[in-house]
Formats: sequence, structure tokens, C-alpha cells
Amino acid sequence: VPEVSKGAGRPREEKVDEAIVRATRAVLAERGYAGLTVDAVAAAAGVGKAAIYRRHATKQEMIFAATVHDLALEAPSDGASLAADLVAVAEGFAEQLGRAPADVLAGLLADIYGDPALAERFAATFLVRQQAVLEEVLDRAVGRNELAQPVDVRVAHALLLGPVFAWMLIVDGDPDRTGVLARLAGEAAASALLGTGRGDR
Amino acid sequence: VPEVSKGAGRPREEKVDEAIVRATRAVLAERGYAGLTVDAVAAAAGVGKAAIYRRHATKQEMIFAATVHDLALEAPSDGASLAADLVAVAEGFAEQLGRAPADVLAGLLADIYGDPALAERFAATFLVRQQAVLEEVLDRAVGRNELAQPVDVRVAHALLLGPVFAWMLIVDGDPDRTGVLARLAGEAAASALLGTGRGDR
Repeated sequence: VPEVSKGAGRPREEKVDEAIVRATRAVLAERGYAGLTVDAVAAAAGVGKAAIYRRHATKQEMIFAATVHDLALEAPSDGASLAADLVAVAEGFAEQLGRAPADVLAGLLADIYGDPALAERFAATFLVRQQAVLEEVLDRAVGRNELAQPVDVRVAHALLLGPVFAWMLIVDGDPDRTGVLARLAGEAAASALLGTGRGDR
Repeated sequence: VPEVSKGAGRPREEKVDEAIVRATRAVLAERGYAGLTVDAVAAAAGVGKAAIYRRHATKQEMIFAATVHDLALEAPSDGASLAADLVAVAEGFAEQLGRAPADVLAGLLADIYGDPALAERFAATFLVRQQAVLEEVLDRAVGRNELAQPVDVRVAHALLLGPVFAWMLIVDGDPDRTGVLARLAGEAAASALLGTGRGDR
């Protein structure tokens, strides 16, 4: 029945995707980051390990996909000012990072900082997607004549993601105030970039 | 000759401190973070391992002390405005982090994120010292009536350290422009904190 299995391929694949995400979250909840194995996720999802490795090059990328990562990360709707847009982007970063339990984020960071190849793959997916969102928001500000000259997207990225990251993962800030911090970071970044982008310095 | 050895104790201890710092840097330069062992540092310094462990609880803390850490981290001289002071503090953070080779910083971060007890000890030394510097700078701004109400030092810390950290260790920014980024982060943080500290919101 090759025709049938071919026709049914797409939905079946999506079901496997979902089963792996659900199983990863369940195993993380039960055993924590350090205790998770691909074998345990495969067993909980009712799939073979090959099905997992076809989707994710490493255990870390499987965990990332099931917790932090949101393929659908999009630019916020136009907030009519660079400040409003950057606040929305910073809040999005905070929400995205806040989806993973603290031990999962710390464990992922340990593995990423310990493995340059893994760090490069994360940059090529996660960071590139965040920067695409920022590019769109910066382009809008040029369109509004808020910014007279282009701004380096990495500068904007560091000014927005940095404070949110530091709040959650360095200075151990109050989790209930991450949103407040994200708003401040957005306003601070807008003020700095509007100064830089004025073209008078 | 107990009296003599007692009198000579201080300088001898300082020489051992210096020998360990020099040896740690030499072994890092030769073998990198992953290849460094306490045995190799002890041999290169001509001291016993006990002399190292009396000073540093772990290999990571020894490496940190020999690269990033500066016990003498002090508040910058009064720049006459919160913005000038925060720029100086951000530039200090950048200089401090920039002292360690990139592989050392990444390796330290991997170990810190992988070990909550180590993370806690780093917070209690490194981060607490940075926050003491920030407290002093924020107090000056209150004294100048720039800030009408106290500001949470962790907020200021995240707004300043976050962008510098992200530039160097997340978005892979141009190392030649870390100083520019630090200045922007200082100006951005001042603008956000002066808004928050006005007391009208």
C-alpha cells in the first residue's frame, strides 16, 4: 500500500513531531535536564530513536525545540514607534526564554558554551530568527524617519536580549518582574538607538 | 626560627599568589581551558596542590581569579552625571570580561551553568562586587537629585552587564566595537533609570 502510506505521510509526521515534543516535556518534568536521555524520550513518545535524530541533530536541540524555541517567532504588529516595537520584541524574548524551566535553560547554556559546534547551530537558528524580527522593526523605524541611518542589528540585539538574559540567568532577578525589566530594556534600547541613528554623531 | 618565618609569612604568601596566577595564565595559553588541570598549574607554579586549594575552592575559581576577576574593582570617579558614571561602569564590565580569552569565558560559563553550587559562589563574589560598584554610582545620582527614588540595583545591573555580556558571548559582536556597545548600554540604562526614578510613573 505505498500510495496510501505516501498520502498519509504528512499527518503521521506531524503526529510524531507532537509526540516527541510532549514526551520531551514529560521526561524533563519527571527527571530534569540532567536526567533526560534520547532513549527515554523515544520510549515515552512511542517512536524509534532514528525518528528523533531525523528531526534533531542532538539531544540539546530536541530539548530546545520542545521548550524555548518557537519557529513562529514573528515581528510584533506595528506599534507606531521604535520604542513601542522594541518593548514588544523584548517582551517576546522574555516570554520565549521564560517557557523553559530554569534548570533546562542553565543545562542548555552549559552544553552550548561547552561545545562550539552546538553554539554555532544555535546561533544559526535561534539568534538568526530573533535578528530577522529585529531587522523588520528597525526597518519600520527608518520608514517612519525615526532612524536616519541604518543601525547594526547585533547592537540592537545585544541591547534588548542582554538585559532580559542577564535578569533571568545572571543576576537572578524576580521572575514576576521580568516583564517590567523587558519594558525598560526596550525603552532604553530605543533611546540609545535613536541617539545613534540621528546621524548627528 | 618561628619568629623569622612568621615575619616573612606575608610576602611569601603574596609570592605564591602571584606564582599561581602566572602559572594559570601560562597553562591556559598552552593547553586552553579544557586542557588545564590543577596538577599542571601546581607544577608550573612550583607549589603543592594544597597551596592552591587553600586559596581557591575549585579549578574554575582559580581560573576566574587569574583571568576575569579583579578584586580591586572600584566605582569610577564621579563623572558628574548618572549617564557618565554608568558608561564608565559598563566600560569597566567590558574590560573585565575582555581580559579572559573567549574559550576561557565559554568554558567557565559552561561549568557555572552546569553546577548550581559553583554558580552561587560566583554570584557571592563577582556579581556582589559589581553590584556594590553600581550601588555607589546610583547613590551619587540620588545625591545629585537626578534620581528621586531608589532604583533596584539588579535592574541597573541587568541593563548594564546584559548588553556587554550578550555582545561578547551571545551575538558574537565585533570585539573592536565592545567599547562602543558599552557606551551605548550605559547611556541606554541611564535614560531608562532616569525615567523610572523620576517618580512620575
